[in-house]
Amino acid sequence: MTRHDNRLGNELRPVKIETEYLIHPEGSVLISVGNTKVICTATIEDRVPPFLRGSGKGWVTAEYSMLPRATGQRTQREATRGKLGGRTMEIQRLIGRALRAVTDLEALGERTIWVDCDVIQADGGTRTASITGAFVAMAMAADKMVQQHDLKKFPITDFLAATSVGVIEEDKLVLDLNYIEDSAAAVDMNVVMTGQGAFVELQGTGEEATFTRDEMNGLVSLAEAGIEQLFLHQKEALGSIAERIGKEVGEEG
Amino acid sequence: MTRHDNRLGNELRPVKIETEYLIHPEGSVLISVGNTKVICTATIEDRVPPFLRGSGKGWVTAEYSMLPRATGQRTQREATRGKLGGRTMEIQRLIGRALRAVTDLEALGERTIWVDCDVIQADGGTRTASITGAFVAMAMAADKMVQQHDLKKFPITDFLAATSVGVIEEDKLVLDLNYIEDSAAAVDMNVVMTGQGAFVELQGTGEEATFTRDEMNGLVSLAEAGIEQLFLHQKEALGSIAERIGKEVGEEG
Amino acid sequence: MTRHDNRLGNELRPVKIETEYLIHPEGSVLISVGNTKVICTATIEDRVPPFLRGSGKGWVTAEYSMLPRATGQRTQREATRGKLGGRTMEIQRLIGRALRAVTDLEALGERTIWVDCDVIQADGGTRTASITGAFVAMAMAADKMVQQHDLKKFPITDFLAATSVGVIEEDKLVLDLNYIEDSAAAVDMNVVMTGQGAFVELQGTGEEATFTRDEMNGLVSLAEAGIEQLFLHQKEALGSIAERIGKEVGEEG
Amino acid sequence: MTRHDNRLGNELRPVKIETEYLIHPEGSVLISVGNTKVICTATIEDRVPPFLRGSGKGWVTAEYSMLPRATGQRTQREATRGKLGGRTMEIQRLIGRALRAVTDLEALGERTIWVDCDVIQADGGTRTASITGAFVAMAMAADKMVQQHDLKKFPITDFLAATSVGVIEEDKLVLDLNYIEDSAAAVDMNVVMTGQGAFVELQGTGEEATFTRDEMNGLVSLAEAGIEQLFLHQKEALGSIAERIGKEVGEEG
Amino acid sequence: MTRHDNRLGNELRPVKIETEYLIHPEGSVLISVGNTKVICTATIEDRVPPFLRGSGKGWVTAEYSMLPRATGQRTQREATRGKLGGRTMEIQRLIGRALRAVTDLEALGERTIWVDCDVIQADGGTRTASITGAFVAMAMAADKMVQQHDLKKFPITDFLAATSVGVIEEDKLVLDLNYIEDSAAAVDMNVVMTGQGAFVELQGTGEEATFTRDEMNGLVSLAEAGIEQLFLHQKEALGSIAERIGKEVGEEG
Amino acid sequence: MTRHDNRLGNELRPVKIETEYLIHPEGSVLISVGNTKVICTATIEDRVPPFLRGSGKGWVTAEYSMLPRATGQRTQREATRGKLGGRTMEIQRLIGRALRAVTDLEALGERTIWVDCDVIQADGGTRTASITGAFVAMAMAADKMVQQHDLKKFPITDFLAATSVGVIEEDKLVLDLNYIEDSAAAVDMNVVMTGQGAFVELQGTGEEATFTRDEMNGLVSLAEAGIEQLFLHQKEALGSIAERIGKEVGEEG
Repeated sequence: MTRHDNRLGNELRPVKIETEYLIHPEGSVLISVGNTKVICTATIEDRVPPFLRGSGKGWVTAEYSMLPRATGQRTQREATRGKLGGRTMEIQRLIGRALRAVTDLEALGERTIWVDCDVIQADGGTRTASITGAFVAMAMAADKMVQQHDLKKFPITDFLAATSVGVIEEDKLVLDLNYIEDSAAAVDMNVVMTGQGAFVELQGTGEEATFTRDEMNGLVSLAEAGIEQLFLHQKEALGSIAERIGKEVGEEG
Repeated sequence: MTRHDNRLGNELRPVKIETEYLIHPEGSVLISVGNTKVICTATIEDRVPPFLRGSGKGWVTAEYSMLPRATGQRTQREATRGKLGGRTMEIQRLIGRALRAVTDLEALGERTIWVDCDVIQADGGTRTASITGAFVAMAMAADKMVQQHDLKKFPITDFLAATSVGVIEEDKLVLDLNYIEDSAAAVDMNVVMTGQGAFVELQGTGEEATFTRDEMNGLVSLAEAGIEQLFLHQKEALGSIAERIGKEVGEEG
Repeated sequence: MTRHDNRLGNELRPVKIETEYLIHPEGSVLISVGNTKVICTATIEDRVPPFLRGSGKGWVTAEYSMLPRATGQRTQREATRGKLGGRTMEIQRLIGRALRAVTDLEALGERTIWVDCDVIQADGGTRTASITGAFVAMAMAADKMVQQHDLKKFPITDFLAATSVGVIEEDKLVLDLNYIEDSAAAVDMNVVMTGQGAFVELQGTGEEATFTRDEMNGLVSLAEAGIEQLFLHQKEALGSIAERIGKEVGEEG
Repeated sequence: MTRHDNRLGNELRPVKIETEYLIHPEGSVLISVGNTKVICTATIEDRVPPFLRGSGKGWVTAEYSMLPRATGQRTQREATRGKLGGRTMEIQRLIGRALRAVTDLEALGERTIWVDCDVIQADGGTRTASITGAFVAMAMAADKMVQQHDLKKFPITDFLAATSVGVIEEDKLVLDLNYIEDSAAAVDMNVVMTGQGAFVELQGTGEEATFTRDEMNGLVSLAEAGIEQLFLHQKEALGSIAERIGKEVGEEG
Repeated sequence: MTRHDNRLGNELRPVKIETEYLIHPEGSVLISVGNTKVICTATIEDRVPPFLRGSGKGWVTAEYSMLPRATGQRTQREATRGKLGGRTMEIQRLIGRALRAVTDLEALGERTIWVDCDVIQADGGTRTASITGAFVAMAMAADKMVQQHDLKKFPITDFLAATSVGVIEEDKLVLDLNYIEDSAAAVDMNVVMTGQGAFVELQGTGEEATFTRDEMNGLVSLAEAGIEQLFLHQKEALGSIAERIGKEVGEEG
Repeated sequence: MTRHDNRLGNELRPVKIETEYLIHPEGSVLISVGNTKVICTATIEDRVPPFLRGSGKGWVTAEYSMLPRATGQRTQREATRGKLGGRTMEIQRLIGRALRAVTDLEALGERTIWVDCDVIQADGGTRTASITGAFVAMAMAADKMVQQHDLKKFPITDFLAATSVGVIEEDKLVLDLNYIEDSAAAVDMNVVMTGQGAFVELQGTGEEATFTRDEMNGLVSLAEAGIEQLFLHQKEALGSIAERIGKEVGEEG
């Protein structure tokens, strides 16, 4: 089976992660997954939301947005409409939750990591590209923080990446859907996994359609294989910082 | 294994679906799942959102809300805050999407079914109880609509119900989490299925935790068994209307 | 004279006040006045609005809302519109003001009683049913508070109930208007009274119409008689708590 | 009995109504009642709200606002806060409703009269001064409209004015409360009446207090006498237009 | 060259500044420039915005609004729309910035001067009339503040006034444009100057047009001459307060 | 005189304009002016705002935003705050107005050009860089439109670019201020000019400071020289499209 862009069913689009993309943030990347491009930044703030004050624990929170012309048709800005749409809220909640799963909030101390994912070009899979890129930006910011604040432990406990899988043309299972495939897919599943191979999020949705248990299993396997490749891209982007993940400070290498 | 409320791991809480709960709506139920109570109503509107005008197709949309004291602590009203929270938006998008999976939007014609789920008492599982109850309210409204508008086909194609499953106390898989269990669960999964046994939504989330593929499989099996029981409650509540689901008009019985 | 629902002009609709309707709030009732049904809850919060901080005095505030299908036509949610309508604001200001008239704010101490009135079914008179029901919920919450906080005085000083009266069919004065009557009424008057027979609020409004002084007097008399009956329903609902109203703690019975 | 400003209990503050205060509106006045000063304008718009389209009937709607320094302490602008407060909404609903009671909406045709009441200086009684002044602005605009649109009937059917009365110092009934009196009053009543002596609105409110039926009667009588004097001021301000009120066009004089 | 209202190109409209226009504010004027009328008030608040707390410095901030019928067509209220428009924000930022240029924020101490400019009638030049009037209101408030708070230095350092100039009918340079001229002008320039003859703001804008450097110079000269006359009006309005501007307290006269 | 980044007073920062930066928009550039980087896109929409419907004329409108970490400190998103700030509104009004000055709105026909300027990295001069870059994106979109819609005339009539100039260190006039200079500048002036050397906008502002007429003239000369260089960058970026500006279709070359 080949796809309209000549990929195999289990083939990712080309992935590129440019680090230190912007000069101001503590961590920043431009991640490209095919034509999908997202600027991910991580900011360290020395305080936490009210519900954590005095707890000794930190927090990770994410915001997600698309430029108006990230898409084929111009999308009205949410700032102009005066409110965030449901899709945006759902995505930013997902990104934050996923990143927290690999963050040692106690090691972080009473600090917040703000992750911003701004999609400058969209071609399907923007939320999963955001997670994959945001992880790298966050790890880079964590590294700076460890150096400046004398943390004993690197606060990121494991790798984290995400991809989408789906069912197209009735019964074909495919990895990493682009916009055309995503629009036509009967079933769409987003999978977020850790470097240890555990699931953090699994969101399978039939779009005016349903899926069987066999399809569920096939999709999950496809996602697992794709995410393994994304970890390699992350490691390459992070260089020596990759070795600190999940370690005590000074322990790595 | 027994739980703090003495249920077995694979045991649902007591379920009750009162139909015709309110006098005004075309369909209305009060669904109770343990202490969780939701008023679900269905309203038929003779027009569709702009993107469907002239298409001959209908739409199903859902809104979800909680009374301020549905919860142990008073929650500020979203009307007072002036905007919907991310959790509310995510839930109402989920409910609408799930109901559309069993609606024949062409058979519905250019009409919108508005589903309102108002939680008057919350004890975990409000979104899944909303889906299970909303399905019954929608089927009742569809029945009235068929009688009044001469539809050729009953526009609901299959049964639909939902439940939650999760991992508590490190490794125990349990069905239908109440609030205490939900708060403590490492993993939480919402499953929406059709009467034919297909999945519509599968949303598994690690809360600052992860889950393995084996756990995923165990949770899905537990959910399947629970949802089978919910279908029986729906059939009892719907009475003769249950026979029309998925049929041409005049074909049932 | 009989009315379209066969009531006499001075006859209330059937009234029912179910207490402890919900498990979480400190006080809660479901009040039915004919087909009008309102869930009223009372919540005690251990702080006051800024303008009362340090004053030693408490506050009572109310919020009012209707489910979208409380009405014959679906009403858009105010949370979705992003703001409260004028009618809602006017009603919740009225409810709060009325309840404060029978609350000893100094005996309450620096606490706020939040009263929530959620109309689940509307058939005229929702604001007056809300006041009548909210009084019972508030008295129950006050009773719990007295037990837990060692107040010296029961902070509710008198009974409080409300009804509507109006002029229909040109010159007929009627008590407790339902929706059909209310829509057709030339004059509509809401009356809130205390157990001692004093007025707290009197709001008479000509709807594109006017009323004479004689009509004013007739309407007020009709309301007085109706409210006397509502006090009996409240006393029955409150049971022994009714005896504490207006008393020092320990003094009742 | 004399009051802190040496008025008798049944004495209005000095009233002044300047007509044609602004050059642009179809009708405009600056009304002063003591130190309370309100700019009232009336605008004719050749369309009606959606619920009246095609009905042949018109509408009257009012908006009310205060300059930030109309008051002793600066009040934050509602435009800056991004929403109207409950008090503002309540007042503008009252003004609109009151004016509609003396407007022949069918004679008006499918037109809207927008009434704007902007308080430039506040010293109690701003809502009643607004009604009294707005009536004059509206009558002036109606006169222009009759001349330009060939209406057969003058669309204002009767005079309309309003004042406040209240109970101060435990048991003194007073007319036309200024800010100091209003702040200290136990009971406050706003009364709106027509030239024929009928009531349009009667809103009596105990402020953490109550009032007896005798007090109600005394307050209403006091208001009636005060409003009679306001009609004289309106007639003087309107000049020959006053004669057209309630008449067929051509009939007056 | 004469203009449609018979003014010469370099002629201001009649200017009138009524001081102590309202009883409550610390400073208030009604300024008229032709038919443009603005109520300007100044309020002293004993605190500063967060970014200045502890700095020992004060702040000046301005708000600007128009009554709905200040204009020929009724303008919707920004409070009703729920947000400030871009034009309003731009104008109030300009007014605040201009006034701060002649305020010694250190001499002011940690206080905020709130300036409110409410246009009751608009005929072009509302922003420049606001600045010219607001300066007088602010100086009057500063005078009261000096008397009450023992400031060592009068916190206003110089006079400040503003006018508009523009190019009409292709190439005529005119001073103080009214609404008709402003609507037809190809180029519009607002100039704010100090008593010492220095510029504070210079905003020249081609409205779907452009202007040459010669035109720029001609417009600036015209504005300088006009503003000189506005200073005379301000001095007359301020009387003896005018002598304190730019002086140590006790030094003037 | 040299500056902290070793530039001469009349020296621009390095300028780079990358065209066709994004795949979806009709025109898109990434403009860099030193470290300031802005993505500018132009979108053609086949309709106009209500006030132009039926006029045969088109419109140009602009929106401006900054990524949260475009700046040294993270800035809260306006979408999250729910409203646009005054600075944003002022800038997007300026950009739209400037672009309209070189657009033949009649040649454009009833179409809207939406220009979006998203600052991904900020180091001073973001509004002027936005104008300079947006002009290029708009010209590219106009070129596509001419090819697809058979316009007779290229709808862009002239080049357009902008820069900032200012007074630093008391009396030094400098071109193209970066963030550090801008923060310290006593006077800041933004200048927008056309290829013909005419001014479109001239906005000089004293920041708690003033400027003389001589300084005004010096600043304007400095800006003129800088903008001449920006035109060269635009021409290079546009290539053959540059020749069509201001011409009939088919006339160029």
